[in-house]
Amino acid sequence: MAKSLAVLGSTGSIGTATLDVIAAHPELRVVALAGGGNIDRLVEQALRFRPSLVAVRDGGSVPAIAGRVPAGTRVVHGPDGLVEVARHPEADMVVCGLVGALGIVPTYAAVDAGKDVALANKEALVAAGAFVTARARETGAHILPVDSEHNAIHQCLRGEDPAEIRALWLTASGGPFRTVDRGALAEVTPEQALRHPTWVMGPKITIDSATLMNKGLEVVEARWLFGVGADRIRVVVHPKSVVHSMVEMADGSWKAQLGVTDMRHPIQYALTYPRRLPAMLRPFDLLAAGPLEFEAPDLERFPCLALAYEALERGGAAPAVLNAANEVAVEAFLARRAGFLDIPATIRHVLARCGDAPAESLDDILAADRRAREAASHVLACGVKP
Amino acid sequence: MAKSLAVLGSTGSIGTATLDVIAAHPELRVVALAGGGNIDRLVEQALRFRPSLVAVRDGGSVPAIAGRVPAGTRVVHGPDGLVEVARHPEADMVVCGLVGALGIVPTYAAVDAGKDVALANKEALVAAGAFVTARARETGAHILPVDSEHNAIHQCLRGEDPAEIRALWLTASGGPFRTVDRGALAEVTPEQALRHPTWVMGPKITIDSATLMNKGLEVVEARWLFGVGADRIRVVVHPKSVVHSMVEMADGSWKAQLGVTDMRHPIQYALTYPRRLPAMLRPFDLLAAGPLEFEAPDLERFPCLALAYEALERGGAAPAVLNAANEVAVEAFLARRAGFLDIPATIRHVLARCGDAPAESLDDILAADRRAREAASHVLACGVKP
Repeated sequence: MAKSLAVLGSTGSIGTATLDVIAAHPELRVVALAGGGNIDRLVEQALRFRPSLVAVRDGGSVPAIAGRVPAGTRVVHGPDGLVEVARHPEADMVVCGLVGALGIVPTYAAVDAGKDVALANKEALVAAGAFVTARARETGAHILPVDSEHNAIHQCLRGEDPAEIRALWLTASGGPFRTVDRGALAEVTPEQALRHPTWVMGPKITIDSATLMNKGLEVVEARWLFGVGADRIRVVVHPKSVVHSMVEMADGSWKAQLGVTDMRHPIQYALTYPRRLPAMLRPFDLLAAGPLEFEAPDLERFPCLALAYEALERGGAAPAVLNAANEVAVEAFLARRAGFLDIPATIRHVLARCGDAPAESLDDILAADRRAREAASHVLACGVKP
Repeated sequence: MAKSLAVLGSTGSIGTATLDVIAAHPELRVVALAGGGNIDRLVEQALRFRPSLVAVRDGGSVPAIAGRVPAGTRVVHGPDGLVEVARHPEADMVVCGLVGALGIVPTYAAVDAGKDVALANKEALVAAGAFVTARARETGAHILPVDSEHNAIHQCLRGEDPAEIRALWLTASGGPFRTVDRGALAEVTPEQALRHPTWVMGPKITIDSATLMNKGLEVVEARWLFGVGADRIRVVVHPKSVVHSMVEMADGSWKAQLGVTDMRHPIQYALTYPRRLPAMLRPFDLLAAGPLEFEAPDLERFPCLALAYEALERGGAAPAVLNAANEVAVEAFLARRAGFLDIPATIRHVLARCGDAPAESLDDILAADRRAREAASHVLACGVKP
């Protein structure tokens, strides 16, 4: 069962883990790679996996990289390069490990071309879930979630009738500030926020985990992946991240998926589905994991989660606006141009101002995304009133 | 999707819960009932569910009951009566809620007649699993486990390839004596042993839960239900009984089934499979359940579990012998003719003496069962040397 893969975001956290998994499974091969700013890593990957196509972010890098990749490997760049990788004619599946709204267009392109997608880029579904999933149904493309929570739910729903879902339960670690009081949250630094208690991930998603916006985005993502309304998608804080998520079925039965916190598990699951291949990971040890605790999320201290539910209820472009405002605010926080609590404050302002933008097409969504970014930059530059 | 059911053991704990479930689902109907010693309850059930056939335990009860059941309901009795209920021509599925080795022959009869079986009588598989499952494969009968642990595993394995199971994890509450030291176990009374911490069940299975023999029998049962060797069936103590059991797959992923401790859940699951119908139970509340704890079982204090593994490894008639000796010893304990620690001691003696009996046929198994009972009675009468 050989499978040819195109990997978007190959030099990032998901991309490198994906290539680890591919390297361990001879039946998986790489036909195209799209990397980010780390040119040396991208060249190294091209030399090792010998794809026929490589995409770089900036056109300026093309000459430098073209001479270092294997002969016969074509080098493309920019947003069109990402789309070309996503539509690569030999690819059976596209792994989308891009960060943020950058993933929307290439993910749409992949399902439009009928490719199965292993999706780690939740923003593609948060912003454009209606369009991506509708097109996937038309072309027969399958979307396999790589996010550990959605991957867990996918595992729990194997062999189940989606009409018999009563609720989906997304687990949240609670992030590094789970027990920090609201006053102290205003003073939080990027270094503190980047110290995630259970998962090793890229900086954007780590900050999103600290604000609980990551869970909010996952609520929206779950709505599109599993076709379940917001009122049946719940979040429960589970500090150890041992239970990756759960489903509650119509008959009152709950199913949970548990395991080590290593992204190579959900990646391998998505790449080899429906088969489960022997793992390259250390075995999970339930006895060593200690008691498993669950608590309700605190929406007062972590308003981003409530904002995401609000955007999902509003529908249309509101989740795309939420996501764009969040990306801009997180970037400002990481660059010390904004405080931790400015993130939800910015999003709230921008959602109020731009949340009702038209959403009749993917272009509308992309326009709403751009306007929300401008509005968020403006709000951050002029100061946020809480 | 109407389904006609024959219920073996209708007046017991599983049987009455089964009739509760049937009463709540108009598409389920009862065509035959086999009750135990409680004649009044059996008559009441016959009047309510109007089966065409009723079986009583003792021939002497037939005249008394015949005049009280609806006209046209035939009354049969004894072991042949159980088999007649199990083979009822109108039954699509047989629910086997009989207690102990009494279930072996009727369960075999049901699968022999091609009936699906909702199986709560674990002894049928413990003693005669090789014959019952082989015959079920030949006739196309499905065996749906009602034991909450195996039912949980069945739920976790929906949509999974059995060849990709790495291990099955049966959870055990640990029973009422989980934290009692070995010395004190010798003094335990039937009243204390009947106080199960999490499940309300009949007396035999409640004592088996206190000795952990119930988990041992479940290990053997799991071997036949899921075709997994003893070396891949593990037991973990989980005092709250919230997680009903788990599976560990080839890729390192674990799946667990959770819910309330109410036998009507697994019964409904088995009766309506593959559908999941809205439950009659209170919803499960994970936050109220408190931390979920897991620990290794103590085989020193609870040797019955080790004896069951030993019997499964020996194979042949050894598990039937283990089960028969256990039934006799539990009966003696409940009648205060034996102490709590005489249960494992009796089983160990009888297993050493009768464990290698021939096991070429179901008749061999029944003969081994009889001889083991005689040996156990003898050991108990003459005193057990520990």
